[in-house]
Amino acid sequence: MIADFQDWAKSRQANIESVLQTFLPAADIAPERLHDAMRYAVLGGGKRVRPLLAFAAGELTGASEERVGIAAAAVELIHVYSLVHDDLPCMDDDVLRRGKPTCHIQYDEAIALLTGDSLQSLAFQLLAEHRLADDAQTQLEMIRRLAQAAGSRGMAGGQAVDLDSVGKALSLPELEFMHIHKTGALIRAAVMLGAYCGASLGESEAVNLDHFAKCIGLAFQVVDDVLDAEATTATLGKTAGKDAENNKPTYISLLGARQARELAEGLRRDACQSLEIFGAKAERLRQVTDFIIQRNF
Amino acid sequence: MIADFQDWAKSRQANIESVLQTFLPAADIAPERLHDAMRYAVLGGGKRVRPLLAFAAGELTGASEERVGIAAAAVELIHVYSLVHDDLPCMDDDVLRRGKPTCHIQYDEAIALLTGDSLQSLAFQLLAEHRLADDAQTQLEMIRRLAQAAGSRGMAGGQAVDLDSVGKALSLPELEFMHIHKTGALIRAAVMLGAYCGASLGESEAVNLDHFAKCIGLAFQVVDDVLDAEATTATLGKTAGKDAENNKPTYISLLGARQARELAEGLRRDACQSLEIFGAKAERLRQVTDFIIQRNF
Repeated sequence: MIADFQDWAKSRQANIESVLQTFLPAADIAPERLHDAMRYAVLGGGKRVRPLLAFAAGELTGASEERVGIAAAAVELIHVYSLVHDDLPCMDDDVLRRGKPTCHIQYDEAIALLTGDSLQSLAFQLLAEHRLADDAQTQLEMIRRLAQAAGSRGMAGGQAVDLDSVGKALSLPELEFMHIHKTGALIRAAVMLGAYCGASLGESEAVNLDHFAKCIGLAFQVVDDVLDAEATTATLGKTAGKDAENNKPTYISLLGARQARELAEGLRRDACQSLEIFGAKAERLRQVTDFIIQRNF
Repeated sequence: MIADFQDWAKSRQANIESVLQTFLPAADIAPERLHDAMRYAVLGGGKRVRPLLAFAAGELTGASEERVGIAAAAVELIHVYSLVHDDLPCMDDDVLRRGKPTCHIQYDEAIALLTGDSLQSLAFQLLAEHRLADDAQTQLEMIRRLAQAAGSRGMAGGQAVDLDSVGKALSLPELEFMHIHKTGALIRAAVMLGAYCGASLGESEAVNLDHFAKCIGLAFQVVDDVLDAEATTATLGKTAGKDAENNKPTYISLLGARQARELAEGLRRDACQSLEIFGAKAERLRQVTDFIIQRNF
């Protein structure tokens, strides 16, 4: 089973890499430096957790791998744009990402800004110019969901709260609000977009899948906090221990490592319960869930 | 005629202001500071040239003002996001925009970055969540066009070329390449999106309208260069003379003021010729064209 999952994940990671390779403008098309930077930021790195979730959700609804590949690429482009902007000096000011110099270090700040901006546009272009759902109206709903998840009431809003929280003592509900937006919204969109590529879900199926996605989004962040506190820079591929150094509230600073792990495990159980309605069709989603919760601990 | 146009423009500017007021998140919704900054950047300023073009193009195809208002708001959000990012220290480093302190001066750099990011997401959200065209497939085409116009092969790409051109001697074709991307692409999208809100255009109508939009987009930039060179900061509402100060190539530095004006006039004639096929239905587009070319000179 685990070997099977690893093969599946590898094959989907290769698929998403190839889709991104294809749809990112070639580095010899003007403006060359911008296109080079876009490819640098996106290609050849990352665990592609959001695409894996989209592929697994697509298996739930019998979606074609081709459709999900493009939808998942759009979600990953939004994710990478947020990393590029988040690493800028006026934000987290980080120099290392996915084991390489961050975009503004490798190029310059202006190019990194435009790289993020252009990756966001490209995400919506992909969702609009390929046939990804059985009808155009569902595809509009996919775009609406991704736009909402990315914007001020989703990911970008979560980043604003994050910035504002540096050096502050947040309560657990405040920390949860931040992460539901900053990380959770896009993970939720990844799951729902993958599912939309296939057959329509019944109402209670959609509610359960969305609840699953919400739990897994939060669990992902709890695990991230644990990893940031415990891992080394080399394992992480990005600067470790940044949160503590920046005096950022985390699940570790609020709960301690043991309780944070227990919280992640509780969210995993809650997520898996939401999948029961789907039976065996949700097996991939269960595997991706374990992969997310158990990476490195 | 001119009085009539001014009334029309005022009423459409009020419409777009009201649509933007409605769809920008309220400043008392969390994250409050980000939402406040988004409203600060977007509301109560600007000539709304792109929305006026969208409304005029909508009249060509009998589109409802309500639909065009939302499509035009999406285009304006993309425009404003680009201004907010363009004013950042790592780009043009400007302190004054539309007669007010720029977003990063009024708030801070991180908020200005997230404001631009969130405005871009909101633009696509608006296009996806409202019924704007007779069928969902056309609406997907609207989203595709706006995304392409905004991205690395449109506006953001033009800005990359612009940054790269500081202090360089560009040829006229190179300058044109830059402006067709930086300003032209979004103006073209504004015209086409307005038209898509109404009845379908015939093939040669679509080609002519697109050519009109291309000419007017370039003419707009030529006029902007003339204004930047000749106007004062007070009239302009943004820092005047920045181009010369930054040693940026412009139509003025390449052609001189007189030839630049002649170029704008030539583009106006070319644009108007493309409208002949539409007869009286294109009257508003002709008026907006005159408004764009003749503002302040």
